[in-house]
Amino acid sequence: MSRVLIIGAGGVSNVVINKCCMNPEIFEEICIASRTKSKCDAIKEKLDGGKTVITTAAVDADNTQEVIDLINDYKPELVINVALPYQDLTIMDACLATGVHYLDTANYEPPETPKFEYKWQWAYKEKFEKAGLTAILGCGFDPGVTGVFSAYALKHYFEEIHYIDIVDANAGDHGYPFATNFNPEINIREITAKGRYWEEGNWVETEPLEIKRVYDLPEIGPKDTYLLYHEELESLAHNITGIKRIRFFMTFSQNYINHLTVLQNVGMTSIEPIEYEGMKIQPLQFLKAVLPDPSTLGPRTKGKTNIGCICTGIKDGKEVKYYVYNICDHQECYKEVGSQAISYTTGVPAMIGAKLLLEGKWKKPGVYNVEEFNPDPFMDELNKQGLPWHEDFNPTLID
Amino acid sequence: MSRVLIIGAGGVSNVVINKCCMNPEIFEEICIASRTKSKCDAIKEKLDGGKTVITTAAVDADNTQEVIDLINDYKPELVINVALPYQDLTIMDACLATGVHYLDTANYEPPETPKFEYKWQWAYKEKFEKAGLTAILGCGFDPGVTGVFSAYALKHYFEEIHYIDIVDANAGDHGYPFATNFNPEINIREITAKGRYWEEGNWVETEPLEIKRVYDLPEIGPKDTYLLYHEELESLAHNITGIKRIRFFMTFSQNYINHLTVLQNVGMTSIEPIEYEGMKIQPLQFLKAVLPDPSTLGPRTKGKTNIGCICTGIKDGKEVKYYVYNICDHQECYKEVGSQAISYTTGVPAMIGAKLLLEGKWKKPGVYNVEEFNPDPFMDELNKQGLPWHEDFNPTLID
Repeated sequence: MSRVLIIGAGGVSNVVINKCCMNPEIFEEICIASRTKSKCDAIKEKLDGGKTVITTAAVDADNTQEVIDLINDYKPELVINVALPYQDLTIMDACLATGVHYLDTANYEPPETPKFEYKWQWAYKEKFEKAGLTAILGCGFDPGVTGVFSAYALKHYFEEIHYIDIVDANAGDHGYPFATNFNPEINIREITAKGRYWEEGNWVETEPLEIKRVYDLPEIGPKDTYLLYHEELESLAHNITGIKRIRFFMTFSQNYINHLTVLQNVGMTSIEPIEYEGMKIQPLQFLKAVLPDPSTLGPRTKGKTNIGCICTGIKDGKEVKYYVYNICDHQECYKEVGSQAISYTTGVPAMIGAKLLLEGKWKKPGVYNVEEFNPDPFMDELNKQGLPWHEDFNPTLID
Repeated sequence: MSRVLIIGAGGVSNVVINKCCMNPEIFEEICIASRTKSKCDAIKEKLDGGKTVITTAAVDADNTQEVIDLINDYKPELVINVALPYQDLTIMDACLATGVHYLDTANYEPPETPKFEYKWQWAYKEKFEKAGLTAILGCGFDPGVTGVFSAYALKHYFEEIHYIDIVDANAGDHGYPFATNFNPEINIREITAKGRYWEEGNWVETEPLEIKRVYDLPEIGPKDTYLLYHEELESLAHNITGIKRIRFFMTFSQNYINHLTVLQNVGMTSIEPIEYEGMKIQPLQFLKAVLPDPSTLGPRTKGKTNIGCICTGIKDGKEVKYYVYNICDHQECYKEVGSQAISYTTGVPAMIGAKLLLEGKWKKPGVYNVEEFNPDPFMDELNKQGLPWHEDFNPTLID
């Protein structure tokens, strides 16, 4: 019997829990915990009546002792951390203190003061080894599936992969001229931060949005993508032997960049309060109130995501090019679990990682990124659990 | 001895009063009146000590009786109306009731519910004739000088003018990515309203910003201009005999249009209040609070305006093309009177119109637009009072 504690009650957590309930032979009992218990109850309510027994709890994941107490009370085998990224270390500490396995999905971007870096979590390696516990880091889509794709490519089709380009394209359309799923501060940071990629043993820095490529991707067509830094670059540069260059490209439409830029220009994204009729109001907070509520975007978002890896390298003395990718439909996701593709593509891999750990297929003492495990059972699960992948040995994505 | 009542205490009024004080042989005594007397006092304070005797008064120009009482008390020869455009009729009524001449500068754009149309003021013609009083309408730059330019062209260089294109270019740069001098609602209406021009006896409507021309103008260079409706088109189509087509073009930079469009897209220009922490706040009002205060733009605005008329017609059986224009420097204006070129180019012609009326050169009972008077003394005054003009008989402003 497996009992799993899931910390966090946001969009990704909702997907993880939905998918766990679709695999009740593994996830027999789960507890959903977050600071706001009512959010956990809301998710539970929709899923009650299935085979998986769901309970809920309140926990402040910033507080290691609270997490320890909850774990000691519930006695799970594994904690799936889909809380806030800056809570990773307190939760890892609690797992070590209680002898429980750990898995997270990392986050798209490090928070304001980036405590969240792999080197920090990698420093826990020896502690987890000694405790005989497994910690799986960054088991979402990117990071996550992109690492599995890379490991799978290397295992089956290459002697050495020299170049990997990860392409993350979201062609979803919510029908508004502008809206964001995320914290606008993070969106702005994405387009104003310097880019970075790894080449020949060094990090190369670019100006914000300096490198633009138009990828013509299966099922979504040509899209503007920009080179960004993304956290899986750090682990893949480290773990994929022989790699010479690894880069990450993400779609941003001209319209999206333009709207964010204008709002920043006029001061509407500032967190510095202004005087307004005797009140102090942060322009960014007011902007959030004017923009469409992110929770309303899910049901109206149409279109698909396409995320994949383009690998180039050597096999039997010949150059090989290999493209592996997943296409995910926003409306299909919403129909299935009540979240659109952004949350879906992150939550499904987290459930798969947890499943493989509980089945013993991805269990080894220490702290690991996903590309350090056998990719084959994960690739099988992707096809079964709603994220089927495709491969192309002759990709022509760029003119 | 001339005594003049000036109603209004904004930027244009400041210019009118400064220029009156530079012509004290005509403007011996002036009274500045507005709803907020302290604004009048602030203008007076800077100019006291000159030859012109300045007094101030509070008046609600929406209230005809208040204006009548003030006129009866101060006993001016002329009222210069640089108050709000929707106060034109109450002030005209007060002038008729007290036997005083009238002059206004009209306004750039009619207000929300456009009561302010020439036909409305034109209906006062007989009343002013019978009272032996002169009313001069729209005596700013455009309307105003553009009408004088047209009348001057017709008088001296043409038998018939067939085409007039008025080009209003502002190459001022305040150094902010975006800021407005005006009410953002009016700015938005300017770029979202349908365009309109007069051709062969009919009004032709265009889509908003449908007709764009790049004019390469003296001293300011190539600028994007767009065909708009502007109120002098109505009077010039009526008063310039033989005219076949008259159009108005105004500069809007791509950057300006883009910023306004984005702000409109996201809802920041809406006057519909939203809920924000228990308060009802109009997004537009909040946006105004975030944007640079218009009163801070004057000292930092650099560059020039260029406003003129391109006339094409017939003289001695040959086609003649004639371009007459004024160039005005924002910083020079600010240095001279403490207002930049937008207010300066409106205020100086108002003073000139008043001067000509008081001198008897532009005095005839009735209600008139500026092009119905002899343009020559006005053109002389423009050169003397800070708005020198230039002419070109071979203009090549468009490729």
